[in-house]
Amino acid sequence: MAVVTRYIHLSTKGNADVMDITPDVVEKLKESRIKNGIVNISVVGSTSALTTCEYEPGLVEDIKEVFDKLIPQGRYHHDKTWGDGNGHSHLRSSLVGPSLTFPIVKGEVILGTWQQIIFVDFDNRKRNRELVVQFMGE
Amino acid sequence: MAVVTRYIHLSTKGNADVMDITPDVVEKLKESRIKNGIVNISVVGSTSALTTCEYEPGLVEDIKEVFDKLIPQGRYHHDKTWGDGNGHSHLRSSLVGPSLTFPIVKGEVILGTWQQIIFVDFDNRKRNRELVVQFMGE
Amino acid sequence: MAVVTRYIHLSTKGNADVMDITPDVVEKLKESRIKNGIVNISVVGSTSALTTCEYEPGLVEDIKEVFDKLIPQGRYHHDKTWGDGNGHSHLRSSLVGPSLTFPIVKGEVILGTWQQIIFVDFDNRKRNRELVVQFMGE
Repeated sequence: MAVVTRYIHLSTKGNADVMDITPDVVEKLKESRIKNGIVNISVVGSTSALTTCEYEPGLVEDIKEVFDKLIPQGRYHHDKTWGDGNGHSHLRSSLVGPSLTFPIVKGEVILGTWQQIIFVDFDNRKRNRELVVQFMGE
Repeated sequence: MAVVTRYIHLSTKGNADVMDITPDVVEKLKESRIKNGIVNISVVGSTSALTTCEYEPGLVEDIKEVFDKLIPQGRYHHDKTWGDGNGHSHLRSSLVGPSLTFPIVKGEVILGTWQQIIFVDFDNRKRNRELVVQFMGE
Repeated sequence: MAVVTRYIHLSTKGNADVMDITPDVVEKLKESRIKNGIVNISVVGSTSALTTCEYEPGLVEDIKEVFDKLIPQGRYHHDKTWGDGNGHSHLRSSLVGPSLTFPIVKGEVILGTWQQIIFVDFDNRKRNRELVVQFMGE
């Protein structure tokens, strides 16, 4: 049983920038040589999140719009602390969650054909991001 | 340390069909013979999700209604891509999330007495579903 | 490869009480002596949840307010079953989720500087809570 740590680095545009990280995870899995186990992917920071979706332009647009409706940009108490106007970014990230775990079976991350692992940068500006990809298995 | 992969197959009615999969997970855990470790449960596909709740008819009804309010059925950009009218199904699934991990201690999945593992099929039609149940431990 | 189980006990005020459990998780990690692997943290019960945020008073207030808006206290079908008036607590908990998994690298839980692990008690009264902290690794 082995533990293998890899990192993904991304440059994002912020403002609910949705990025498909599936190819990166698959590449790191091959490097890890793990055939059966799990992979945990976690964001570092509190204004971005991970989930899955069918990665196609319509849904990417829908994701931006649904969060503008659920937790709009606006005035939040958080702004009193830092004044950086990204209270909505924090709240959206906490709602979606910072971390995902998937099974690895026979050398593959198990996902649906139309299911991609997406990183959503909810911050209100461009960011350079690091994700941790932790493989455990044999 | 062992890795044991099992699958759960479900026939759902779609439209926020809420199914208690706790008995299935417990059964697969017994088969796995793992006593201490973790279990990761993941959906295959992008229009269903996993979480926990007290599985009783009132809350099952509430879950349907709360998602009808938060992310109503309607017109989404996703429909331009496929025309299958399930943009809301995708968005709800991305919000709830595709995957859960629980501790296994002394041969049991640790949950509260009134806490069940639920699979929610948000698609807008009947579906046959496969879940992956990945056990790791000793 | 080892599995180490620890517990965190909390007394909460309920009503979206947000508690930073990062120091507890770090303390348990030291006890576990695990250097590389993962930690899974899970709530026991169906009216509380786990996520991450920047733990500062403004955001804690924002979290309370955003959930009052998204899933307000009110009349839910769940009340017909138990009459305890906490339908909103269940629904909020199912939405945020019961469980988180993080990577452990070189003896540290990987989180951002302004990213804390938070436990949110959504129940409508004071509660004593138990969380399971499951470490796996080497």
